[in-house]
Amino acid sequence: ETKKLSEFVAKLEYSMLPEEVIDTAKKAFLDCFGVTLAGLNTTVGEKIINYVKEMGGNPQATALGTKFKTSLPYAALANGVMAHALDYDDIIPNMPGHPSCTIVPVLLVLGEHLGISGEDLITAYVAGFEVGTRINLCIMDEHYKNGWHNTATVGSIAAMATAANLLNLNVAEIQKSFGIISSMVSGLKRNFGTMTKPLHAGTAARNGLEAAILAKNGFTARENILEERGGFLEVYCGREKCNLKNIVNILNLNFLDSYTIINPGIGFKKYPSCYGTHQAIDAMFFLMKEHCLALEQINHVKCETSELFYSILPYERPKTGLEGKFSFQYCLARVLLDRRLGLAEFTDEKVRESSVQKLINKVKVGIHPVLRGKKNIGFGFTVVTVQLKNGKVFSKKVITPSGEPTNPISQDELVSKFIECASYGIQREIEDLDYVAEQLKNLEELKDIKKIIDIVAKGSRF
Amino acid sequence: ETKKLSEFVAKLEYSMLPEEVIDTAKKAFLDCFGVTLAGLNTTVGEKIINYVKEMGGNPQATALGTKFKTSLPYAALANGVMAHALDYDDIIPNMPGHPSCTIVPVLLVLGEHLGISGEDLITAYVAGFEVGTRINLCIMDEHYKNGWHNTATVGSIAAMATAANLLNLNVAEIQKSFGIISSMVSGLKRNFGTMTKPLHAGTAARNGLEAAILAKNGFTARENILEERGGFLEVYCGREKCNLKNIVNILNLNFLDSYTIINPGIGFKKYPSCYGTHQAIDAMFFLMKEHCLALEQINHVKCETSELFYSILPYERPKTGLEGKFSFQYCLARVLLDRRLGLAEFTDEKVRESSVQKLINKVKVGIHPVLRGKKNIGFGFTVVTVQLKNGKVFSKKVITPSGEPTNPISQDELVSKFIECASYGIQREIEDLDYVAEQLKNLEELKDIKKIIDIVAKGSRF
Repeated sequence: ETKKLSEFVAKLEYSMLPEEVIDTAKKAFLDCFGVTLAGLNTTVGEKIINYVKEMGGNPQATALGTKFKTSLPYAALANGVMAHALDYDDIIPNMPGHPSCTIVPVLLVLGEHLGISGEDLITAYVAGFEVGTRINLCIMDEHYKNGWHNTATVGSIAAMATAANLLNLNVAEIQKSFGIISSMVSGLKRNFGTMTKPLHAGTAARNGLEAAILAKNGFTARENILEERGGFLEVYCGREKCNLKNIVNILNLNFLDSYTIINPGIGFKKYPSCYGTHQAIDAMFFLMKEHCLALEQINHVKCETSELFYSILPYERPKTGLEGKFSFQYCLARVLLDRRLGLAEFTDEKVRESSVQKLINKVKVGIHPVLRGKKNIGFGFTVVTVQLKNGKVFSKKVITPSGEPTNPISQDELVSKFIECASYGIQREIEDLDYVAEQLKNLEELKDIKKIIDIVAKGSRF
Repeated sequence: ETKKLSEFVAKLEYSMLPEEVIDTAKKAFLDCFGVTLAGLNTTVGEKIINYVKEMGGNPQATALGTKFKTSLPYAALANGVMAHALDYDDIIPNMPGHPSCTIVPVLLVLGEHLGISGEDLITAYVAGFEVGTRINLCIMDEHYKNGWHNTATVGSIAAMATAANLLNLNVAEIQKSFGIISSMVSGLKRNFGTMTKPLHAGTAARNGLEAAILAKNGFTARENILEERGGFLEVYCGREKCNLKNIVNILNLNFLDSYTIINPGIGFKKYPSCYGTHQAIDAMFFLMKEHCLALEQINHVKCETSELFYSILPYERPKTGLEGKFSFQYCLARVLLDRRLGLAEFTDEKVRESSVQKLINKVKVGIHPVLRGKKNIGFGFTVVTVQLKNGKVFSKKVITPSGEPTNPISQDELVSKFIECASYGIQREIEDLDYVAEQLKNLEELKDIKKIIDIVAKGSRF
């Protein structure tokens, strides 16, 4: 299986990719590019930039959005941490982990260093994504349940595959890259809620890139590490518990739905809050629009959700921006108040405003009767009910929030998110950012990604 | 438990250390210093030096034995790979893994960068060693059986503790360092026999150092990662299978034997071949000396060992230097021929010499009748029997080979090994190396390790 995946990575070419695959990869690249820039404007983003500056390195690549160049691995480390810093980056439906935050950092640094075209970046994105999801399909849900953070663990293998494709490694070298990266795979879910979570994405991107470079330089490692006894799958999942067939399926890419990038696809986050709040936020926006609700009319709001979401969103009365991201009460009150929910709405000041704190009293959150006691229902659904002062009651149930592949956000919304993220992270004129967005929307026409990276670097505070 | 270990690391001071502890740490430092220099003269050593040169970094520390300076993490990476490149570095009796090859790289790079005294290096060595062995005691043998290479996994935590002590982190920062490093722990035993094995020591040293620096810079992570649910011990060993009491015992350092560096102590390798050959080699040297044997007198040699050693030493007729390290036949024939067995005896040319290949025919290897079918006897013993042409038969049984703490090699032998290793790795006058050895023998008197690192750097080919 290591060999089959390696052959896939070695042979994938742009001309083989269906149009829908290319479109989705471009969206993912645009989205992650923007989210990475936004990550510059976070404590953990600033800390990782300072760390890589302190360590230094040959000026091979840029930490995105800065004027600072360092070695490929350290630029990838910084980009990975920034990409995941706000938890605003993309997901894969029904799989644990965020796909792009370990792949795109590698594309950015090797892209700049080697002067790679948009077409080749798209191809390498697909190589990394497909390898990562096949391994995810093979080890889920056991691996995640055992305490691992797939973004870090599987993500490092996806990063390696991305780098191996860009570096044009041959099959034997890619097999060794799998061997090397399997001795670098790490990342405990237990560190969620700390800066070590975004660090996972950074070390995964760095290690994946490093494994591919070392293999290219002649480092040796086991060549069938995934499947052999004592290899990756056995140690990180348990031999009996993983489904090797899911890896083999990668050979069968003759129809569109066989690409995991199409099925199950990629979910883009429309709001920079915990994914668990997204059904509720969508429902609230729907009700306000559908019934032309004004704040003064509202008596109270009821939000009924699954046991899972109720349990992971504990902040009834948040005090910080970060707590606000994990609070149904804050998110719904803020939507009612401002009719928008972007990065600017999650500062500590915004969350502490007396107007929103007062409104929070009107939002009651509980478990929906139908979902009570049910554990294995996936993400279930959320129902938001608004009772008006005049006694009228409106209700909306959302199963699939905006951003999921089956309820996609539009190209325009993605570009708006990009502009929001980029201007949050760096001080650039909006016209410049519009230009960058336009270039990324037509990534396949770009001859060299370096041009774009240089544009966003100007005017950086780093 | 994370807290108790962190307090130990934060509070350990030179004045607290018993003399025997200091002596053992000094020996380990001297031995690993030499072995690291020898590692320069290996393919993997050369490859890692070229890699860190390619990546570059602020000139904070030296890759030992070169004139090349790079960032702390990359210098630690190079030193770790070199230290373990020849598998000639130290061991701990009854525990899996090599202790010094992840600790000493950190001492060298931070020692040089911060200008640290011999006393403080010794203290930090003990901090790293004791933390590593406590965790080893807690998770053995389950962790190793599950496929992990303790040198890499536990070794990275030991490297972190060493760095944390040198960087004077406070208890809370060290607890966070444990959290960060636990999301970087990796290294599959399956990669044994490839360059990825020494790479394990390098990445462990680098990651341990990085975790401590990131915590010092304010990175956050879980503060009780070892013991909590989903934490290090549960994920890497299994909650029920680890013995937490062994960690707590670190608090009880009132008597000498409570230091693991004394009990079980450190084993130094006298010969640069697989540890499984050492009983046999000792027996052969004993017989030759005791009976003044000359090569011409020998009719044949019989070597009877444990099932374990028989199974891991498969090369009856080795063709390369590396195979020679895993061959009873070659090691015994070479001792008979040259009465010495050092680094120079394990080149491809030496192993292929017709004289030694002819002599190999006279060496028969098998399992000792008493050990046949016995799996759980630890390392058992080896009996070497020499039959002379005149019909006389001499036999010697060895249980504890030279180098084990209960059969220690002398200070003089350690210094000879150091000189052998250093002159194998770098082109320096022997007088210089004698001077360096003398300085390291009296490490506690050294004001700044930088002086010594600069001496060995002169005349390097890198």
